[in-house]
Amino acid sequence: MTQLSPTAIKDALQSAVPIDSIQVQGWVRTRRDSKDFSFIELNDGSSLRNVQIIARNTLPNYAALQRLTTGASVRVTGALVASQGKGQKWELVADNIQIVGAADDSYPLQKKGHTPEFLREIAHLRPRSNLFSSIFRVRSRLAFAVHQFFQERGFVYVHTPIITGSDCEGAGELFRVSTIDIKNPPRKNGGIDFAQDFFARPTYLTVSGQLEAEAFALALSNVYTFGPTFRAENSNTSRHASEFWMIEPEMAFCDSNGNMDLAEEFVKYLIADARKHCPDEMELFARFVDKELLARLDLVVERPFQRIAYNDAVDLLKKSGEKFEFPIDYGLTLQSEHERWLTEKHFKCPVTVFNFPKEIKP
Amino acid sequence: MTQLSPTAIKDALQSAVPIDSIQVQGWVRTRRDSKDFSFIELNDGSSLRNVQIIARNTLPNYAALQRLTTGASVRVTGALVASQGKGQKWELVADNIQIVGAADDSYPLQKKGHTPEFLREIAHLRPRSNLFSSIFRVRSRLAFAVHQFFQERGFVYVHTPIITGSDCEGAGELFRVSTIDIKNPPRKNGGIDFAQDFFARPTYLTVSGQLEAEAFALALSNVYTFGPTFRAENSNTSRHASEFWMIEPEMAFCDSNGNMDLAEEFVKYLIADARKHCPDEMELFARFVDKELLARLDLVVERPFQRIAYNDAVDLLKKSGEKFEFPIDYGLTLQSEHERWLTEKHFKCPVTVFNFPKEIKP
Repeated sequence: MTQLSPTAIKDALQSAVPIDSIQVQGWVRTRRDSKDFSFIELNDGSSLRNVQIIARNTLPNYAALQRLTTGASVRVTGALVASQGKGQKWELVADNIQIVGAADDSYPLQKKGHTPEFLREIAHLRPRSNLFSSIFRVRSRLAFAVHQFFQERGFVYVHTPIITGSDCEGAGELFRVSTIDIKNPPRKNGGIDFAQDFFARPTYLTVSGQLEAEAFALALSNVYTFGPTFRAENSNTSRHASEFWMIEPEMAFCDSNGNMDLAEEFVKYLIADARKHCPDEMELFARFVDKELLARLDLVVERPFQRIAYNDAVDLLKKSGEKFEFPIDYGLTLQSEHERWLTEKHFKCPVTVFNFPKEIKP
Repeated sequence: MTQLSPTAIKDALQSAVPIDSIQVQGWVRTRRDSKDFSFIELNDGSSLRNVQIIARNTLPNYAALQRLTTGASVRVTGALVASQGKGQKWELVADNIQIVGAADDSYPLQKKGHTPEFLREIAHLRPRSNLFSSIFRVRSRLAFAVHQFFQERGFVYVHTPIITGSDCEGAGELFRVSTIDIKNPPRKNGGIDFAQDFFARPTYLTVSGQLEAEAFALALSNVYTFGPTFRAENSNTSRHASEFWMIEPEMAFCDSNGNMDLAEEFVKYLIADARKHCPDEMELFARFVDKELLARLDLVVERPFQRIAYNDAVDLLKKSGEKFEFPIDYGLTLQSEHERWLTEKHFKCPVTVFNFPKEIKP
């Protein structure tokens, strides 16, 4: 007898026809009993959707199944049949349910809404929540779309160094990387003797792969990086992270217009990709996180981005009659409130401000 | 007049028909003069192949073009026509050649073979060499194929933390990440006061994303990581790197056989992908780096991998009659020479040794 290969619940639910014998595996979301059955909602993280398992009371381990609680993991073999229930095309009538691992009452993800704050405290379990499993599936899909976008256009993916000896944005923001014994560092001439460090010199975590990417672009024409980047800034805002994945395209033969073209095409490509490949997840974000999300994303995809020179943008802001918290004038950088006025109030679409004075280049 | 969009030389050379007006950009590989023409071999890194540019002496800047040397960058507009020359389908008869940047005689990549050692000393220029441009194009293509393989199979890509507080393989191999002033570290009770470090505790560069990937697999079923990983081992061998990109799949419902299946399928997929998408580069490696490369790769793709239990492998090695440098017996780890005997001499194919004693699990 050949062993039955397991099927992802996402694929099972998209089946075009009933399937006599199918195996799924996953974690119990909820279970409820009727007279002769137990109904198990099973999720395996392949999508937001659960498959409903019908466990008949004739199953040999029915008593144990009736003790299954949220979070338990099971392997189910049975028949995929048209569902009588509402809102689902298929359900799975089980021939066999193997309990892989039980969960007890202390399992923290019981059936109810959880705040992101609560989920943050159970980082090892939060990928099982609808919100975070959706976030991580979309992140994965978008990471792939990033590669697809550049590879389709002949860009070469470059892994630039993470540990670096160069200090391109000022030492204050850098994490030091070292194997020196910090309790008793080797000293020389009043300073630290970095000749005894791992790379025989001071080294840091990269803040940008731009330097190396530029060298590669001057050989391969079009390249991109996509890797972790670090800032040791002690600012706890939603705009700062000490560790994040950054994308840096570099093009050898390109001007400012070509650069803006690429950025616009890229943003639109990623949004369209997420809309196409993650419809359930985007719907969930729109329902529970940001009601205007989908309308705003579609606007970004549909309309050309507005392009405006820095001086013209400052003109508009000065003449706007708006009361801003921060001053605006030629030579000053644009603050978040100025950017929002340009995009949300004035142009009502994404705006690229070009010809920034090089002294305040963001 | 609309501006002509530049074409990658790779795409130009694959054209099915002549093109009246085309623009290419790149770096001069060589130039030679005939009576009324100058022939320029131009490469833009999109592939190994150059396009031959015909610069007629009627071009207004012909005198300047005659001073073009290897490494100079130019933008060429002209007609793609059938080539009279050998070994090339197309050549480009220039209407206009704009010199973007000249190169002088000190340019180190003159037309001749260069050793990898020499190229290592000019890291900023080596992507312009045939060997390294090929390596980096293949690396880029394979990185994409890694993602494609897992995404096609429903695996979720997870970015696991690079900076970590966990120390899963022994502190001796870890790089410390810190913003503490190493000259005057804050001290407390005779030790370092890590409460004053950036994350208020000691932190390191990750040696593996496995811990986090396992938590994600227990929610999303199948996940993979692909990111930089670090070892502060002071060993200068071809098997050790202090910084490298590692791939770690984790499957929630899987046994040893499923694991071996995936690994075998993965290796074959990547080889087939490189053979298909990088034929010129693989040919170059076979000519200049390893004459048996292609035959060996094809063998790996065509034959099923041999699977053998650890105890059986030790039996074979003990009975082999081979004189090994390192001892072999039950409970001892397999050395490189033992692995090579199994793969190269005995089975003549890749070998998966399973059921390793957990004490010496590699």
